[in-house]
Amino acid sequence: MRIVRYDHAGHVRSGVLIGDAVHERSGGPIVAALREVTLLAPCDPRVVVCAGKNYGEPDGTGRPKLFLKAVNAVTGPGSAVRFPPDLRRLEYEGELAVVIGSTAHEVPERSYRDYILGYTCANDITADDWRADGQWVRAKSADTFCPLGPWIETDVDDPAALHIRTTVNGRLVQDSPTKDMIFGVGELLAYVTRWITLQPGDVLLTGSPAGVGPLAPGDVVDVDIEGVGTLTNSIV
Amino acid sequence: MRIVRYDHAGHVRSGVLIGDAVHERSGGPIVAALREVTLLAPCDPRVVVCAGKNYGEPDGTGRPKLFLKAVNAVTGPGSAVRFPPDLRRLEYEGELAVVIGSTAHEVPERSYRDYILGYTCANDITADDWRADGQWVRAKSADTFCPLGPWIETDVDDPAALHIRTTVNGRLVQDSPTKDMIFGVGELLAYVTRWITLQPGDVLLTGSPAGVGPLAPGDVVDVDIEGVGTLTNSIV
Repeated sequence: MRIVRYDHAGHVRSGVLIGDAVHERSGGPIVAALREVTLLAPCDPRVVVCAGKNYGEPDGTGRPKLFLKAVNAVTGPGSAVRFPPDLRRLEYEGELAVVIGSTAHEVPERSYRDYILGYTCANDITADDWRADGQWVRAKSADTFCPLGPWIETDVDDPAALHIRTTVNGRLVQDSPTKDMIFGVGELLAYVTRWITLQPGDVLLTGSPAGVGPLAPGDVVDVDIEGVGTLTNSIV
Repeated sequence: MRIVRYDHAGHVRSGVLIGDAVHERSGGPIVAALREVTLLAPCDPRVVVCAGKNYGEPDGTGRPKLFLKAVNAVTGPGSAVRFPPDLRRLEYEGELAVVIGSTAHEVPERSYRDYILGYTCANDITADDWRADGQWVRAKSADTFCPLGPWIETDVDDPAALHIRTTVNGRLVQDSPTKDMIFGVGELLAYVTRWITLQPGDVLLTGSPAGVGPLAPGDVVDVDIEGVGTLTNSIV
């Protein structure tokens, strides 16, 4: 099932997308055609917690590296990411995003599925210059730095069996199976929720594979996850 | 005016405290006596952005040092802060908290007052061991690490004319005028909102003066700000 959040004639609602029709709910009446609505970020998180460096060589600590994105950064599919003035290097990072379905506190790794509503695509936009601030607030949480979408796919049996492909203006720049994550979704959710209680709609980003690179105004970035969907954003 | 958020017989509402009476609104009817309600954090922020090292010697960068606290950490006056297992050193940091009143984007420093609803007390609880993680997620955002309260005081003319006193079990540990901030409230709000749009109810923590120190289970911490109020929390 594909859960969407959308603006239709000025009203923000959630629904279910079947083919090109937006339904009020699963089994409910059709509200609008997909072309008549503006898709928004498919959830409205209060916490967006992220795993850094979760592909490639482990760093030897045996622990996920966490950071936060503030929710002012969340934006939807099709929206524009703003390239800040006074910044040299802005980067895309295509990622699998986990959307929480029920209050998640001290989640046992083996039962992580019980706490997950579904999955969507994320682009963990990063102002590379500003990593030098130490804490990555400007680097990760400027307005529009967290595109999510296009919908929440609830029918994902194994989040380690997906494949992430990122393109910039159609050129393939990231191409990786999610089985290459250092810490899987269950491990990440168990780790985070030892300290941070997540609520329905909150989001866990699972890290970006090799191939992260720069963006320029005018670029169009697609984050495509097989079996989930494609998130498209432009840089302005 | 003192704006409170409270639980009364299972219902969460906002109101105005006058003496010991909770009013529905300014000039409105009395809803309950203060003793009949449980005060909660006086606002329900979506973003809590914080200035680090904002008292004492400037670090020479000429820029505020920012970090985030995730909203799962927010808790109210009188509530218990949980000392995490496997942690050696937990610290209090008494701070002046700014509560945003209207959407704040690229705020001009001189007109910062137009964007502020009022002020409250914060205790920026920190797991010192976990600063070594690099990004301060576990260190700053574990559940209950952001007590706020007891209310929002709207009648503060000059946030640089206040005084913070923190006590642990009645012993004075922090004692500083807010005029000693390196970056004042207007400078901080102007800086943050160049990148991060803040919404009504969002919170800006303004840094903690000298005297930060350790806490143990059973301790009671008061953060008292002259003309604002006193925030009391226990460690469990």
